[in-house]
Amino acid sequence: MTTRLVLGSASPARLAVLRSAGVEPLVQVSGVDEESIIDSLGPGAGPEETVIRLAQAKAHSVANDIVPDLDGVCWAGAADVLDCVVIGCDSMLHIAGELQGKPLSPEVARERWKTMMGTTGDLLTGHCVVRVRDGAIVDEATGCSTTRVHFGTPSEQDLEAYLATGEPLEVAGAFTLDGLGGWFIDRIEGDPSSVIGIGLPLVRELLGKVGVTVSDLWG
Amino acid sequence: MTTRLVLGSASPARLAVLRSAGVEPLVQVSGVDEESIIDSLGPGAGPEETVIRLAQAKAHSVANDIVPDLDGVCWAGAADVLDCVVIGCDSMLHIAGELQGKPLSPEVARERWKTMMGTTGDLLTGHCVVRVRDGAIVDEATGCSTTRVHFGTPSEQDLEAYLATGEPLEVAGAFTLDGLGGWFIDRIEGDPSSVIGIGLPLVRELLGKVGVTVSDLWG
Repeated sequence: MTTRLVLGSASPARLAVLRSAGVEPLVQVSGVDEESIIDSLGPGAGPEETVIRLAQAKAHSVANDIVPDLDGVCWAGAADVLDCVVIGCDSMLHIAGELQGKPLSPEVARERWKTMMGTTGDLLTGHCVVRVRDGAIVDEATGCSTTRVHFGTPSEQDLEAYLATGEPLEVAGAFTLDGLGGWFIDRIEGDPSSVIGIGLPLVRELLGKVGVTVSDLWG
Repeated sequence: MTTRLVLGSASPARLAVLRSAGVEPLVQVSGVDEESIIDSLGPGAGPEETVIRLAQAKAHSVANDIVPDLDGVCWAGAADVLDCVVIGCDSMLHIAGELQGKPLSPEVARERWKTMMGTTGDLLTGHCVVRVRDGAIVDEATGCSTTRVHFGTPSEQDLEAYLATGEPLEVAGAFTLDGLGGWFIDRIEGDPSSVIGIGLPLVRELLGKVGVTVSDLWG
C-alpha cells in the first residue's frame, strides 16, 4: 500500500527533489517562528542540533495539524492523510564558524560570495520524519546530513549577473546547486539532494526507522 | 551579447541541467557510431581518454553540420547559430576496472546493482566545447570530470521496484542521481551535475578557454 508523504515546507526545490525521486507529496507549510526556536536553544546549541530542532518543530507543527484534537477536529485537508509520514527540513550553511541562512538582499549576498569564493563551507540539512497512523503520531526519527561545498570563483561579470537574477537571495548560504548557482560550485563531498534541501538517502534511512520503505511512497 | 549554446546530445537529463542553470540550448543530436570510435581507440585507451574522445566526436559531428560546406550549404537549422558554442558529452561508470555504459536490460541492471551496492565507482563525463564563429570552427577545449559515487544498499523490495520502473536501464552505470536512483546514492565526491551528464563547473572552465563567460549564455 502506498504511504502518503506530507512535506512540511514551502521550498519549491525540496518539492522538485521529491517529485524527481518519484513522490508526489502533499505540501503543508508550518507556521513555526524560527527565530524564537533558535533563541530558545541558547548560544550553546551546535549547528547540527540547531537544524534538527528547526526541522523537528516544522514536522511536529504540521503533524499536529493533521492529528485530530480532543474534539475530533483536524485540518480540513487532513482527512485523507490520517495515515502518512510528515517530513520537516531546515538547511543552513556553516562557514567560518557561523550558521548562515538566506541573505535576503543583494548586498549581503555579494558580501558573502566575496568571502566564500574559492573556499569551502558545510551545508547542513536537519530532517525530522514523523509517522502518523490512524490519526495519531506513533513514531519519529531525526538526523542531519552535512555536505562539504567547494565554492568556485565566478568572474566579476558572472557574479553580478548571478546576483541580478535574485536567485541567491532567497536560499540558505546564498547559493543553489540545482539552479544558476550550479556553475559556481566546483565540487561537493556528501549528498547533493541534502544541499538542495532534502537528503534522499538520509530520508530513506529515517523512513526505515519508522517502518516505511521507499517503494511504499512510489505508489 | 548572448552566445547560443548547441547541445549535441539527446539526453533529457543534460538538457534539464542546462535549463535549470539558465540556458536554453538548441539540441542537435550527433549520429556518431560510438562503438567504432571505442574500437579505433584500441585497448590501451584509458577511461578518461575514452569519454573525452567520444564527447569530441559528438561535438565535432554537430559543429560540422553547422559549419557551411564548400558549396555554402549547412544544416537547415544552423543559419541562426553560425556564432555559437557546441557541447558534446559522454558519461560512463568506471567500476572494478571496467567502463560501464547503459545496462539496457533489467537482468544486467540487477546484476550490476548486486555487485555495486555498498561499494564505490567513478562516474566519468568527458566534455568537448567547440567554438563556432562566423560559420567556422575557431577553437575547442576538452576535459573530463570524475566523481566518486558511493552506492547505498537498497532493500530487495526497493531494488526490484526500481528496476521495474525501467529508469536504470537507459543510463550509464545503471543509476541516476537526479531521479528515482537518488534514494540509493549515499554520497558523492565531485560535481553532481557531471554525474547527471554535463558538468557545469567544468563547462564553465572550458567556455573560459574559448573566450565565453557563463553569463553570456544567460541572455
